[in-house]
Formats: sequence, structure tokens, C-alpha cells
Amino acid sequence: MSGVKIVTIGGGSSYTPELVEGFIKRYEELPVRELWLVDIEEGKEKLDIVSSLARRMVEKAGVPIEIHTTLDRREALPGADFVTTQIRVGLLDARIKDERIPLSHGCMGQETNGAGGMFKGLRTVPVILDIDKDIEELCPDAWLINFANPSGMVTEAVLRYGRKNKKVVGLCNVPIGMEMAVAKDFGIDHSKVRIDFAGLNHMVFGLNVYVEGKNVTKTVVDRMAKGLFNGSPKNIQDVEWVSEFVKGLGIIPCGYHRYYFLGKEMLEKELAEFSKGETRAEVVKRLEKDLFELYKDPNLDIKPPQLEKRGGAYYSDAACRLISSIYNDRGDIQPVNTMNNGAITGIPADSAVEISCVITKDGPKPITVGELPVAVNGIVQQIKSFERTTIEAALTGDYNTALVAMTINPLVPSQTIGKVLLDELLEAHKKYLPNFKEYFESR
Amino acid sequence: MSGVKIVTIGGGSSYTPELVEGFIKRYEELPVRELWLVDIEEGKEKLDIVSSLARRMVEKAGVPIEIHTTLDRREALPGADFVTTQIRVGLLDARIKDERIPLSHGCMGQETNGAGGMFKGLRTVPVILDIDKDIEELCPDAWLINFANPSGMVTEAVLRYGRKNKKVVGLCNVPIGMEMAVAKDFGIDHSKVRIDFAGLNHMVFGLNVYVEGKNVTKTVVDRMAKGLFNGSPKNIQDVEWVSEFVKGLGIIPCGYHRYYFLGKEMLEKELAEFSKGETRAEVVKRLEKDLFELYKDPNLDIKPPQLEKRGGAYYSDAACRLISSIYNDRGDIQPVNTMNNGAITGIPADSAVEISCVITKDGPKPITVGELPVAVNGIVQQIKSFERTTIEAALTGDYNTALVAMTINPLVPSQTIGKVLLDELLEAHKKYLPNFKEYFESR
Amino acid sequence: MSGVKIVTIGGGSSYTPELVEGFIKRYEELPVRELWLVDIEEGKEKLDIVSSLARRMVEKAGVPIEIHTTLDRREALPGADFVTTQIRVGLLDARIKDERIPLSHGCMGQETNGAGGMFKGLRTVPVILDIDKDIEELCPDAWLINFANPSGMVTEAVLRYGRKNKKVVGLCNVPIGMEMAVAKDFGIDHSKVRIDFAGLNHMVFGLNVYVEGKNVTKTVVDRMAKGLFNGSPKNIQDVEWVSEFVKGLGIIPCGYHRYYFLGKEMLEKELAEFSKGETRAEVVKRLEKDLFELYKDPNLDIKPPQLEKRGGAYYSDAACRLISSIYNDRGDIQPVNTMNNGAITGIPADSAVEISCVITKDGPKPITVGELPVAVNGIVQQIKSFERTTIEAALTGDYNTALVAMTINPLVPSQTIGKVLLDELLEAHKKYLPNFKEYFESR
Amino acid sequence: MSGVKIVTIGGGSSYTPELVEGFIKRYEELPVRELWLVDIEEGKEKLDIVSSLARRMVEKAGVPIEIHTTLDRREALPGADFVTTQIRVGLLDARIKDERIPLSHGCMGQETNGAGGMFKGLRTVPVILDIDKDIEELCPDAWLINFANPSGMVTEAVLRYGRKNKKVVGLCNVPIGMEMAVAKDFGIDHSKVRIDFAGLNHMVFGLNVYVEGKNVTKTVVDRMAKGLFNGSPKNIQDVEWVSEFVKGLGIIPCGYHRYYFLGKEMLEKELAEFSKGETRAEVVKRLEKDLFELYKDPNLDIKPPQLEKRGGAYYSDAACRLISSIYNDRGDIQPVNTMNNGAITGIPADSAVEISCVITKDGPKPITVGELPVAVNGIVQQIKSFERTTIEAALTGDYNTALVAMTINPLVPSQTIGKVLLDELLEAHKKYLPNFKEYFESR
Repeated sequence: MSGVKIVTIGGGSSYTPELVEGFIKRYEELPVRELWLVDIEEGKEKLDIVSSLARRMVEKAGVPIEIHTTLDRREALPGADFVTTQIRVGLLDARIKDERIPLSHGCMGQETNGAGGMFKGLRTVPVILDIDKDIEELCPDAWLINFANPSGMVTEAVLRYGRKNKKVVGLCNVPIGMEMAVAKDFGIDHSKVRIDFAGLNHMVFGLNVYVEGKNVTKTVVDRMAKGLFNGSPKNIQDVEWVSEFVKGLGIIPCGYHRYYFLGKEMLEKELAEFSKGETRAEVVKRLEKDLFELYKDPNLDIKPPQLEKRGGAYYSDAACRLISSIYNDRGDIQPVNTMNNGAITGIPADSAVEISCVITKDGPKPITVGELPVAVNGIVQQIKSFERTTIEAALTGDYNTALVAMTINPLVPSQTIGKVLLDELLEAHKKYLPNFKEYFESR
Repeated sequence: MSGVKIVTIGGGSSYTPELVEGFIKRYEELPVRELWLVDIEEGKEKLDIVSSLARRMVEKAGVPIEIHTTLDRREALPGADFVTTQIRVGLLDARIKDERIPLSHGCMGQETNGAGGMFKGLRTVPVILDIDKDIEELCPDAWLINFANPSGMVTEAVLRYGRKNKKVVGLCNVPIGMEMAVAKDFGIDHSKVRIDFAGLNHMVFGLNVYVEGKNVTKTVVDRMAKGLFNGSPKNIQDVEWVSEFVKGLGIIPCGYHRYYFLGKEMLEKELAEFSKGETRAEVVKRLEKDLFELYKDPNLDIKPPQLEKRGGAYYSDAACRLISSIYNDRGDIQPVNTMNNGAITGIPADSAVEISCVITKDGPKPITVGELPVAVNGIVQQIKSFERTTIEAALTGDYNTALVAMTINPLVPSQTIGKVLLDELLEAHKKYLPNFKEYFESR
Repeated sequence: MSGVKIVTIGGGSSYTPELVEGFIKRYEELPVRELWLVDIEEGKEKLDIVSSLARRMVEKAGVPIEIHTTLDRREALPGADFVTTQIRVGLLDARIKDERIPLSHGCMGQETNGAGGMFKGLRTVPVILDIDKDIEELCPDAWLINFANPSGMVTEAVLRYGRKNKKVVGLCNVPIGMEMAVAKDFGIDHSKVRIDFAGLNHMVFGLNVYVEGKNVTKTVVDRMAKGLFNGSPKNIQDVEWVSEFVKGLGIIPCGYHRYYFLGKEMLEKELAEFSKGETRAEVVKRLEKDLFELYKDPNLDIKPPQLEKRGGAYYSDAACRLISSIYNDRGDIQPVNTMNNGAITGIPADSAVEISCVITKDGPKPITVGELPVAVNGIVQQIKSFERTTIEAALTGDYNTALVAMTINPLVPSQTIGKVLLDELLEAHKKYLPNFKEYFESR
Repeated sequence: MSGVKIVTIGGGSSYTPELVEGFIKRYEELPVRELWLVDIEEGKEKLDIVSSLARRMVEKAGVPIEIHTTLDRREALPGADFVTTQIRVGLLDARIKDERIPLSHGCMGQETNGAGGMFKGLRTVPVILDIDKDIEELCPDAWLINFANPSGMVTEAVLRYGRKNKKVVGLCNVPIGMEMAVAKDFGIDHSKVRIDFAGLNHMVFGLNVYVEGKNVTKTVVDRMAKGLFNGSPKNIQDVEWVSEFVKGLGIIPCGYHRYYFLGKEMLEKELAEFSKGETRAEVVKRLEKDLFELYKDPNLDIKPPQLEKRGGAYYSDAACRLISSIYNDRGDIQPVNTMNNGAITGIPADSAVEISCVITKDGPKPITVGELPVAVNGIVQQIKSFERTTIEAALTGDYNTALVAMTINPLVPSQTIGKVLLDELLEAHKKYLPNFKEYFESR
């Protein structure tokens, strides 16, 4: 049977209409035959709402994409060409805890790389590995395209502990957002911008920026130093870079780097939100509620513009262009999370990096970077150590390893505070941490 | 002429009697013919006091070591076999500023790896490179044995920008102190302890501990976790490790790791000292004053026991056993700062690392480590990035690079604070930062 | 002034009409304003013939490309965007010696990687480095595109000892020829074939072959094993591969691999040619003579079809598409010789490799390969050792180093024979080996 | 129970008296309690002869070493501290075939790295891996000390496919022989010589030679270049090095390098022996016969001096000093085959290399070498590719892989000849190649 079969795990997500819109727009080049939206029991209501909207969108567009839903991923997987994962283990309530518990102790939560992000990793990694195991059994040649955060950590885990064929790619909207921002700043089309990306997920740098083939890195750095350019996603606090720092760096940091290089200011902003009950997770929860109200409207048959505020802008573009380039063996260049394989000197060959790749039918092939600029190699390696130690804790359920992971996180100021955070977060997420069973029983 | 010629730059240091004692004790195996103590004009008085003591010590011991002094190192260098550097550019007053200025902004000073250490590096690196240039001209085959802090950074700088023959070794008393502490804890002689060291200066880990050939790493870790063992130098605040962290790490951290893993507590202790005018630098300044009073006593002809309190315990042992092993091609194992050359995977081959080496007439040859434990690789790389960026700032005098170095230091919580510290410290040390001339003039 | 300025050193070569045809065909995308053909005094007659033909070709095509000639490259270089080198130091007579002298001792000559190739390297490397020095002075931002064999060795030499900006690319028609052969075998257009190349010049492997995005490597291997497919250039003896070897290898060898894996048979064929006075060099000399007779015809205003027999098929395509992709920042994938930079694990980062690259305005960026297949890593490293040792001999003129280079060449069966070849070849090429002056004088 | 238990597999070997003598001499430092000599049914007679001699030697020496024999290694292994392997699968008759079959086709046999060595590997690797499996079950903490050739290939195989704890060391008498030769040449004791070894088994180089701590490499190179020094084992043909080659190399080749650098002459010598029925294997077979006659003499109670001629001089010294240094955690330096772990840049971290190591209770730790000299890196990598491909063939029994291994061997001049050798040798050794069952059945 011709056409592509896609399975989206966490299909009830508010992002799904973006994805559906992406598939509709690209139907000519990427003929999706079946889109399976999979969710868990707790997500059934949302799944119903989203899948109905998806069906209306497809119908309105007049493309023959079949929308299926199921609560059993094993029903969906057989024959899949691509499996996308956009799950949130513990839903937004878990994220609220990830953010509020650290903040209650004066510490950054940060749902991807901070103490909160560590717990997102502890909850998510084992689930994704289970999905990967099902893929191995039911559709072993399918590409696993992961959006679930922390996306770099998840990719690392699947590369190390998942299928032998390593058919996994981690995606993020940060790099594409940086490209879009440059395009906007130069008043040109996105297709005329190319950035050499290298680093890790939420820890990626633009080493060179090309506009219509001209290397404009220095211009972009200068505009950034003057506060005229800002490539950050909307969900990140807008704290000003110090001009001389940006010039000294000479490459383009991503929005998340503020957490590491402007830690004090970021923390202050987050503490202010915390005290008002307006942490990002809380805001998102309200936004989502509104979105689903919108989605329910039986007259809505396009992606509603309000979705943009949700923060995941360009996810759909990133995902659809990746899937399309793999499907079409396009050989174009895209930034994704994939196995390093020597592309960045000094990072283990078998670790995941976020890097510009040539995308072929055989997946992404990183473009060689060589050594990272000296000034940023350290923090990149630091986060990689944190990611790998967290994965080890996630799989072993070992408390001591978890404390080490927490302590080496650059946003945690001491192991004593780390221990407090660890204990509270473990307790708060107990239900989603089956690998820590022995620890919970031994207390 | 037979016998060894040693030139000690910064010879007026209060540590010199330790060194002299070391040479006396080892005279049989290491026949020092001439010891040249070199200092600068400002250090003349101390140089006179110390050299007189040294002469009395030598005479009392009855060994034919000639003690020479000079204020012109170029007079001393010709024919030298070993040149040791124990300089302190700007003397203790500069160190006091290194410590107090950051603390005045609520930030760790830390005279080796913190903001203060960065400035120690900015002041020291160009001077050592000048010394190395003189060595190249006057005694090109001499070994440069550096004690001046930050010793790892200095070694890195000489390896990258100094003599082609790379005859430089950086020394520190931290590793030997850890061996001594294990020996004491097990109630055995130092010679029966061997530790596999790897990392960077003041960022070194004991990967394995052997006592009489038995791998006792787990025992030492457990004792450390229980607070029964502590390998730290006396000059580091005694904050307790969290038991589970130490067990999770599974290797032996050095005392300085507290600054990174117990940052909050260390900062609190230092702030308390700061408010009492008792930062380490201030305490040391008083200790030194007392020591020099003692040294003046014409009846004193041995190293006075009070020197132990000064903090640099074992420096003499570390230095003399290194020099002796090179001289005698002993082939024994010692931890030093030297070129990595692939010994630690992931760190550039041409960077300095602190590592257990076989010591031969051709200098130290690192024992292969392979990959560092995942959990600590990140922080080691982070410090290496900081060291290299600081060296670049030291040699170029570039303000922006200096701000980047300051910001990526893990003890500096934000680039905004980093900028404040940078500006004040630059001003405070203006006199000792000739490479920043253009910056000072342009303000 | 708009348009591209190209300087072709060795412009009197019989290949030049190919290049001119290439520029004419691509004029829309690559507007060449000036093409400077440079040659030496001995090549003046050929230069006149070729440049006249070039002018007729340009006129017939109706494109405004100015053709200039000069015997002084320093006149041509200022303002150049691209400098192409297609020189043959010592002309074809030198190549005849490169091939006949080894064969006279029962040894493979092989004008690129054998004993003959070594001497081609010894003669060519210093000249190209001189050209690079002139470029540095007169048009430092120009790209040096080298066709002169041994192209990999020349690229290695310029990367290590040439301009700091490393703007050099080495080109060869072997990889493009392999792509063309696959296209022909599958009956499709060249644009639908992509091969992942990795290795060294004349030592390159096709790791994966894609036809319309499908990985057909196994099919190509099987057809090769059955003798149905052969990607070799015409100038290489057609000795049959052993079926099981090709299948065991599992990747696509290039034509030159026969010299290493089918050495005995290749040698027999060459010895037969030698005895008939029909070594490749002698044949080429006759072909060239005929070609220049053709070129003289004032009615000829296109590239004559007889040029195809000359052996350098596709050189023009390879060169023009590379120059065009750099000029247009195309971001397409092409196999070239460039700095490894970690793309192939185990080969020094600063060495030249032949590898599929993304071609941008900043030059080629290798696509990461990781480890070469185990079975071929050894021979690739062997040739790299030979290349680097030959370069060292070329630059130092050291006889002993030259003998080591000769001995480690896999086509030389013993150092005793190596010495005989070395002595005779040195004598034969004395005139072109000024760096060996001391050696010649000391005999 | 105190004392060391050693199990020697292949205990009926004529070398065993050397080993026994070594244990007797070192009884004070290495108190061997039990020595188990294990052999197979076909070796029973020799085992009886050798074990009786061993008992007489022990008794005469008056040391309480118990000598046990068994034909079942699983009886011997429990409780072993060290297991040494000195097996010869197929006995000397197999080696005769390894040498004569290639020579009958005009090709070097070479029982370790040539076509013959490849078959020795094919026969031996699976057997050693079986032994390693038994060790894992019965005495998992024992060190496997392998003498069986090709020792580097065997070590590589056990490191990659054997016990997780990687407690294997490969031994060879070549490096110790080179040290002994230097000692003799300088007229000093062996203990005063140290050589920095790096490379592979039978492909090892002395990078630096120290005599009493002085680097005398240049002197040794010069003496070698003049034919005054020769570090080869007696069993290697004495073909003269070309003086300029040795000087150009600048490091000390081992005896086996003649096969690669003086291939033509070595082959001529071997062909001459072949025609007289005096290949090394045939000579050794006769020597062994004589030795066993001697061993039978009930009055013999020491190692007979005639054993020296056998060729394995210093094996006992190499083995006993290694075992003693591990047992005593001596921390001295010895050349052994062990995991590279980054010590030699460019060779995979998980491959076996022959290298100077610090020997501790935890086994050998290589001293970092960095990059091998450029000229020799290639041939070392070539042999490593051959070793790894041979191991793959040995474990899979794949004919095509075996043909690739045969072809990439530098001593095999073409894949067509390689195929002839492969087919004949497979047939000749059919009985000892159970993994090739499928191939044999399919013919």
C-alpha cells in the first residue's frame, strides 16, 4: 500500500493541530496515508477533541489522510514508517511540580535542563525506551522522531540503550526558531538562511550564520550585542545579554543559554513568577485549557492562530521537513539531535549532539565541526555529563547516582540543596518513577 | 662541573626553607651544587632573610650546597638544570584583593579557580612566559618546575606558548596531600600508598587508591562518606560532604571540589571570614609576617615547625622528589601537571592535565586513563575552558575575552556580576596587567 | 567589477578545452569574467595553441569570458577568485621516467601512489607551495583548486605548510567517475546517484551508494562481484576482481585499489606495456601530440571529442561544479580532498582526506564518517603515512627520509630495491629537485 | 590457603621447564603453591615427560611448589590466580603447513603475521575464547596470560569477545629480547636498560632507548645502521638493514619488521629453506624431538641449556616478572599486549597494542605515547586491520571475510594468490576450523 504511515504517541497534545497542518501543507511531497494518534487513558478526552479537529482539518484541505485514534500503541505501531513521540509523563501537573518545588527552595526549576528537567528525564526516559522496545517488535525499521523533552537526553538514552539500528532523531524548535529570527531580522525568507549549529539540545550554538550564502556571523553577533537581535523562543525570559560577553563569544548562543550565563537574573524573574503562581507550567496549563476549548468548536477546521502563543512554534515545520527529507532522501541540511560519531571533537562518538546534518533516507549525517570554540566546550560537556548521569539514575533507580546528577547540574548551587530538591521531587513524582521502587520501599 | 644547579624564582618566599630542607635531606641522591634564589626589588628584604637562613641550614647540615642570591634572573639562569618558579605577582596584597573584591559582591573569590584565581592567572601567565623566554635563551635544556598558582593554567600556557621542547612541569601539593591523608588514615607509611590521579590542577580526582597494592578505593569512599576521612589541605574550609554524593561519585574528590559541589556552604564560610577581615589572604599575610620574624633569628638553622601552618605542606617533598626522579631517571610514579597527549580521552592532546605520570629523565609520561568517569568529565572540561579562555585574555589583553572567561567560571553566577567583578579587579590590578594597556587607555 | 576571475596554472595543458567548455556551459550560474591561462616558458607553444582554441570556443558560444595568457603567474594572480593548478613539473618526459625506471627493476611505477608517484610528489609539492605563497601575497582570499597529481599529497602539503586560511581543495575525477559509472549501470541520470565517499585520493571507497534515495550498495557490490559493474577510469588496467573479495569487502573500491589488492596482475600488465614502449606515459605523450595537432585547426571551436580518450574525463565537470557551488554557496554534496577535522576517526584532524562534503561559500565541510570499515582502515593509513613522509622528504631534501617513504610504499617490495629506485629516480629528476641540492653535492 | 595457584594450558610444551625455572628463581617474591600443567590427549606423553622433569627441578631446588597434571582444564581452573596459555592448535605439523603451503606458491608463510599466521589465528582464537569462557565460570578473577601466537591477535580477540573484566595480557619475548640485546651491546645489566615500546605484537618499535637513564636512541640507531647492533630474535633470518633506512626511521624496529621492509630478501631466504625441507617449523620439530629426549633423562633436574636454541628465549623471564609484578603490585614498567585505551592516538581505544605499561595489581596501565611516528603508523594500522579482520573470520567462519583478511595482509601480493593460499590452507586445517563447517559443507 502506498503512502506513509505515521504514529504520534501523545497524540492528544495541543500541538497536534500544528503537525496535522504541516502534513496537509506538504501532502504533495509527503503523502501521509494514515496518521495514528495514540494517547493514554488519562488523555482520552483531549485525544477525542484533537482527533476530531484533525479530521475536520483534513477534510477541509481535501487530502486523503486517514486519522486513527487508539489508547493502545501496540495496535497503532505495525507498519509504521515514522513514530513521533510528544508525551508528557505526569501531564502538566508534573511539570508544575518540576518548576515550583525547586523555586520553593530558591532554585531554578527549568523544565528541561535544571532540577525540574532532570525529573522530566527520570520520568520520560524509561517510557520512551519501552516505546522503542515495542517499535523493535512491531515496526523495527520505523524512524522514532522524538519531540518529548528533554529531547537530547531522550535521544542519548535511545542511542545507548535502544534499538541496535539507532533509528532515532531528537527534534527541537530552538534551532529552527533561531533561523526564523535571523530571516526576520534580515527581512528575507527562511530558505535563504543557514546556520551551522553545534552543541546539545537547549545548549546549541550557531557557529556560523549565512544569509544568501554570505557569512554574516559577525553582523548577527554585533546586532545581538546591541540588543537589536534576539533568537530566543518566546517561552524564555527576556533578560538582556551583556554586550561585551556576546562579542567576546563571537558565536550565537541560544535562548536557553541565559540560564547558564545570566543565572542570577533568570532566577529572579522565575522567583517573581513563582510567587504570583505564574510559573511557565501554570501559564501553559491555562493556555492549554483555553486551546482545548477552542479545539472543541465544531466549526474550527484549521489550526487556530492562538496556538502560536503556546510556545512550540515551528515544531511542526521542524518535524515535517525532517520526515519529508528522510522520506525523499533530500540531502538537505537540518539541525537535529543524533549520534555524534566524531563530528564534534571531544564528545564521545556514541553520544547524542544537536548539530547540522545532511538528511538522507538513511537518516541524519552530521556535518563535521571539529573542536567547539574553547569558551563553550566546557559547558556543553558539563550538560552532557548531567544528561548521561541522569539517564543512569533513570534506568537504575539509584538514589546516590541521582544525587550526583542533581549536584553536577550547573543550576543547582550545592549538593545539600540538591539533596533537598531530590528528596521532595522523588516524593512528588513517586508514581511515575517505578525504577526507584527499591528506594521508596527502603525509606 | 658536577652537581645540579637549581634556580628558584621567587626565592624570597616563606616556602624556601622547605625547599632547602628537601635538598639537604636528599643530598645523597640529588647533589645540588648551586641554589640560586632570585627575587625582585620589592622582595629584597625577604630574600636576604631567607637566604641567610638557607645558608645557616646548609652549614648546619654540612652539605656543600652554595646559596646564591640575585635580583636579576638573567644572571642566575645560565647553566641551570632546573628552574623553579614560586612567584606571586603583586604579592599578598594582590591576593587580598583577589579574594575581597568578589566577596564584597557576594561572590566567591577563590585565589586559584574563582574570579580571584582568574586574576592571579592574568597577572602570572605573562610573567612566567617571559621567564620561559629567558630560559630558552640562557639555559634552554633546563626543566621549568612551576609552583606558582594557578599551576595548571600556567602549565597550559607554557605548553602552548612557551619553548618548543615543552620542558615544563606544574606542581601542586594537593595530590601528595591526599596520599599523605590516606597513609595517615591507614596508619602506614606514605610509600605504601598509590593513587591514580586524573583531572586538572585543583580539580583532580583519585580514581583508584591502592594501599600496599590492594585497591581500597571503596573503603576510602565509604570512610569519606561517613566523614571519617578527609583528604583536603588545611587551607580549605571544612564543609562536610553529603554521604550519598560521595558514594554516588565512587571516586575521591580533592578538597577544592567543595567549591563546585558545596558552593553555597563554602561561600557562606568565606563571607563570614570576609566580614571579620580574615580571608585566607589576610590570615596568610599575618602568618608570613610572623614567619619572617622567626627566620631572622640568627640562631635558627633548621626549617621552623611553624611553617607547617602556612598551608603549603608537602610542596618541598613534591618538588624535591620530582627533581630527583628526573635527575635520576627513576621511573617512579608521581602526579604532576603535564601535557595530556591522549592520556585522558576527550581533553585536547596539547592541554595540561594533572595526572599520575612515570617520571624519567625525559620528564613525566602520563599513565593512560581513558575516559574520565562520566559524572566528573563535565566539570573538568568546564575548568579547562575557563583556563584556556583566561590565558587567551591574559595574552591578548582583550576585555571581551576576559568577560567570557569570567562568565564561564562556575563560581560566577551571572555575566552581569562577572562584569562588575571584572571591572573592579582590572582597576585594582592595573599595574600588573600591562597587556591590558589598550583597554585602560580607551576607557 | 562583477563576474569571477579564474587563474589556471598549467593553462597550456591539453585538458584546458574541457575546463573552458565547462565554464561556457555554466555561464548563467557562474559568470566567469576573466580566465587567465598561465604556463612556463617551455609550455609557451602549447599555451598559444590552447588559448587560441579557448578564444574560438568562447566566441562561438557567445559568452563574454576574457581569455588572457601569461608566462608570469604573478601578473595573473591579483584579484583572482579561484586559482586552479594543473601543472606537470618536468612534463610528460618526467612521467615516462617515473614509470619506466621502476618497471626496469621489475617494480610498479604508478604515477600517483607508487615509486613514480612519490617522485611526482617530490617535484610538485614545492612548486605548489610556492604558488600558494604567491597567492598569499597577491590574492590571499582566492581558493586554490588543485588538479595536479598526486592531488591528495599536494592538498596535505598545502594544508600543513601553506596559507593559514587553508583555502585549498584537491580534486580528482575518480569519485565523479564512479558516480557516472553507477548512473550508466542503472540507466539513470548522474544527478540521481549519490555515493558516500571516504578515504584518500586514489584510495577512496564508496561506503554507500544511493540511487534515487534508495541504498543500493549491496546491489552494486553484487554486480561488481559478478564482473557486471566496474567503476574504474579508463587509464587503469582492467584486471578482474575476485568475486568473493568484493563481497567480503561490502563497499565499493575505486579503480586504483587494484594496485594494492591485485598487485601481481597489475604489475604483469605494466611490465608487458613497458617492454613494448607503451607505458601509460608514452601512450599519453602520443595522444597529446595528436590532440595539439587537432587544437591547432583554426576551424575547431568546440572541445574535440578525441579528448575523452585522454583519460581525464569529468575533470571539467568536477572542477566547474565545485567552483560554482562555492561561488553560489550551494550546500550540495561533492567528494573532494580537504581537511579531515575528525570526520574520519583515527586519521589526524589536520590531514587531507577525500570525502563527501557539503560545499558552501566557506568551502567544503566533510560529512561525518566515523570509523572506516576495519578491513580498509589499514591501507588508507598506510598511504597517508607514505604521503606525509614523502612531503617531509620533498621539503627537507633528506635522503634518508626519502628512502623511508619509498620503503613504506606498499608497491615497493623491499628497501634494497627501494634504494635502487630512489638513486636512479633522484638522478633522473635532479633538475626538478632543488631541495635535494645538498644530497647531490655530497655524493 | 596462601600462595599462588597457576594453571598452564599447553603444559606439555617444551618451554615449560623455562617457566618452572622462573618460578623457582622467584620463589621468595612469588610463592607459587600449585602449578597445574594442562594438556590435551594428544599431548599426554609430552605432558608426562615435562611434568616429571618439573617435579625433579622443584625437588632439587627445595621449594614447596606442587606440580599437578590433568587432561581436563576444568579440573585445574577452580581457584587459579593466573592462567597461562601456551597452546599450539594442531601442533607443529600445523605450523609446517602454515609455512610450507604459502612458500609452495612463492609466498611468505610467516607463522605469526603472514598467511600462515592468519591460519594460526583462525585455529587459536576460538580455542582461547573457550578457555576464557571456562575461566569466567570457574575462576573469574584470574589473569589470563597468553603466550600463544599470534599473541596480539589473541589478546585483541579476548578483549573484544571475552570476559567483561578484560583480565588478559598478551606476552611476547621480542621486546624483552630487544632490551637484552641493548644491555649486551652496552655491556651492562638488563635492569639498567629501559625502552619505550609502542606498536603491535611482532610489529613493535622501540621509540626511545635509555641506558642508565640516558636517552641513547640515536646511538643505538647509528649502531644498527652500521650493522653493529641487531635486536632480533634468533629465529628470524638475519638480513641486513639498509643503513640510510634505519637512520631515516630514527627509532628501533623489531626483528619481524624485516618481513615488511625487506620482504624480497626474507622471501628468498625462506624459499631456500623450503626447498631444503628446513623451514623454521621443520627445524623446530627436530629440535623439540631432541629436547624431549633430554627431558626424559631421570637425572636431569635443571632446565637443560639446549633449550636456548629453541628460540623462545626470555619467555620465562617475561612471564614470571609480569606475574610477579601483578601479584606484588610492583608498579614497574614492562612491555605487554593490552588494551590501548587512548595511549596510542589513532588506534581504537578498545584494541590491543604492545606497549610499555606500568604493572599493578589491577594489571597493566599503558604509558601514554600520543601519535606514533608518521612513517610507521601506516604499517601498524595495516596489521591491526589484518588482525581484526582475521578475528572476524575466525569467529564467523565466513569465507569472504577470510579472503579479505588474506588479501590485506601485506605479505600477500594479490587476492588471486590469496585465494589459492586460502583454499589450500582451509583444506589442510579443516579439522581445526569447526567454525568454517558451513563453508566446508557447501563446497
